[in-house]
Amino acid sequence: MNDLIIIGAGPAGITASVYAARKRMNFLVITGDIGGQTILSSDIENYTGYQFITGVELAQRFKEHLEQFELELKEGERVTLVNKENDIVKVGTDKGEYQAKTVIIASGRIPRKLGVEGEDEFKNRGVTYCATCDAPLFSDMDVVVVGGGNSALDATLQLIKIAKKIYLVDVTDKLRADPIMVEKAKGSGKVVIYNSAKVKQISGDKLVQGIKIEREGKVEDLTVGGIFIEIGYVPTSEFIKDVAKNEIGEIIVNCRCETNISGIFAAGDVTDVPAKQIIVACGEGAKAALSAFDYISRLK
Amino acid sequence: MNDLIIIGAGPAGITASVYAARKRMNFLVITGDIGGQTILSSDIENYTGYQFITGVELAQRFKEHLEQFELELKEGERVTLVNKENDIVKVGTDKGEYQAKTVIIASGRIPRKLGVEGEDEFKNRGVTYCATCDAPLFSDMDVVVVGGGNSALDATLQLIKIAKKIYLVDVTDKLRADPIMVEKAKGSGKVVIYNSAKVKQISGDKLVQGIKIEREGKVEDLTVGGIFIEIGYVPTSEFIKDVAKNEIGEIIVNCRCETNISGIFAAGDVTDVPAKQIIVACGEGAKAALSAFDYISRLK
Repeated sequence: MNDLIIIGAGPAGITASVYAARKRMNFLVITGDIGGQTILSSDIENYTGYQFITGVELAQRFKEHLEQFELELKEGERVTLVNKENDIVKVGTDKGEYQAKTVIIASGRIPRKLGVEGEDEFKNRGVTYCATCDAPLFSDMDVVVVGGGNSALDATLQLIKIAKKIYLVDVTDKLRADPIMVEKAKGSGKVVIYNSAKVKQISGDKLVQGIKIEREGKVEDLTVGGIFIEIGYVPTSEFIKDVAKNEIGEIIVNCRCETNISGIFAAGDVTDVPAKQIIVACGEGAKAALSAFDYISRLK
Repeated sequence: MNDLIIIGAGPAGITASVYAARKRMNFLVITGDIGGQTILSSDIENYTGYQFITGVELAQRFKEHLEQFELELKEGERVTLVNKENDIVKVGTDKGEYQAKTVIIASGRIPRKLGVEGEDEFKNRGVTYCATCDAPLFSDMDVVVVGGGNSALDATLQLIKIAKKIYLVDVTDKLRADPIMVEKAKGSGKVVIYNSAKVKQISGDKLVQGIKIEREGKVEDLTVGGIFIEIGYVPTSEFIKDVAKNEIGEIIVNCRCETNISGIFAAGDVTDVPAKQIIVACGEGAKAALSAFDYISRLK
């Protein structure tokens, strides 16, 4: 019987693993990938201790940190069910079932879809959810970024160095990103901001060729080669039914990363902690592991 | 009028500063030192992204990260009073008074004293609260470490490389530190563990020469040249009266680092968040800054 199963190996899951390993817990990690959303960030300047690091580099550091410890890692396995019966947590995956005294759900979240015609059809043919991965493909082209938060501005700032012109299309009337990012975008001379604007359709032939935008009742067609969708995320929490969640499916935790079910902990972007930041997810992962250790040490 | 005053520049205060700077907030930092308790750790292996770093090095990275931003830093200034009147937070120090819309209290905690005869007399003459700073002074000597948590074991493991023999004196019947640390201490052949033991007196001439220990009703005199006191901490929260605290003086916060008074936030070791870890304090600092920003953006 494992002490602990950690679901996910992004910043929260990796930090939980580091703490669990140092506590000599008997645990396994089940994850689709290693590094989580970290890899989607381009330039990270707010991970304390690193003045500047790319998402890819930081994810690599995280991975190396994880690999320093001897642990049982189930990589590429998808969790389908988590429940607790008779003080045992059962974690079902597409490849088997595992049992433990505790579980830490650190499964993160995935990008939200726009839900318009052409989005699925042109996915990876001009439509992308990852500027860090795909921006270099759009050299000297006109592109659209959809969204108005930090992710959208992050994508925009990356694209300034690469694309010819960037239309920033946001459904609200004021960008919500950090002012410093908005200023940089505006100062570039390459960014056209469309506030209170809605994407109606994505079109093309083999690749994306255009996007239809509605603004103040008027419809406009923009000729673009790339569309970066940065409109938020969906928490990866569908595999657990019993635990309390908020209205958007985030798992509700207290300051010890405890859920409403004893022995089930959660950390990072899958939770209702509002700050979705790498450094915060790391801190929450540490808390969750320490709480799980504490819980087990009090079990009869 | 400042948007924000950050009290303290340990991991929580520095991370709050990084976030506040990137949010283009108008803020100042009031602190006695930079780096906080980080500098007291010897070998840090659980700050995600750094497989191994010394406390001194990590504190230096934190400091450099802070200095990257243009900010108003009041270093060496001691906060004496924080209160809120008419939506304005006033922070009094030994050198003046500052006002802001919000404050983040990230003032950390200080080592707890043993409270025995000789402790004050021989402070810095054999009695120390910082193994990282002072362990090298006790080369090839017999020493005592008082305590049984991670800090005490951290001190012990540092001393194994330096001292001749280490008496680990703990008042409880079982060490509370990470098992991996306890195993390392036991495996060294240099550590003698005294459980359920109480320090009665510290004695010496110009420097520490001995310590009196009571165990199972018997008093024993140990001849030692150094005494490392690692028995916990006192939160630095005495300068604020109105905010809700727990029984040991830690400021009570929710998961957004909000206190019971709007506009007053707290983060890191000064709060009741149980995990006193560098990575956790960093995460909490980020949360506090984002909450302060959010609070201000909703002010009329």
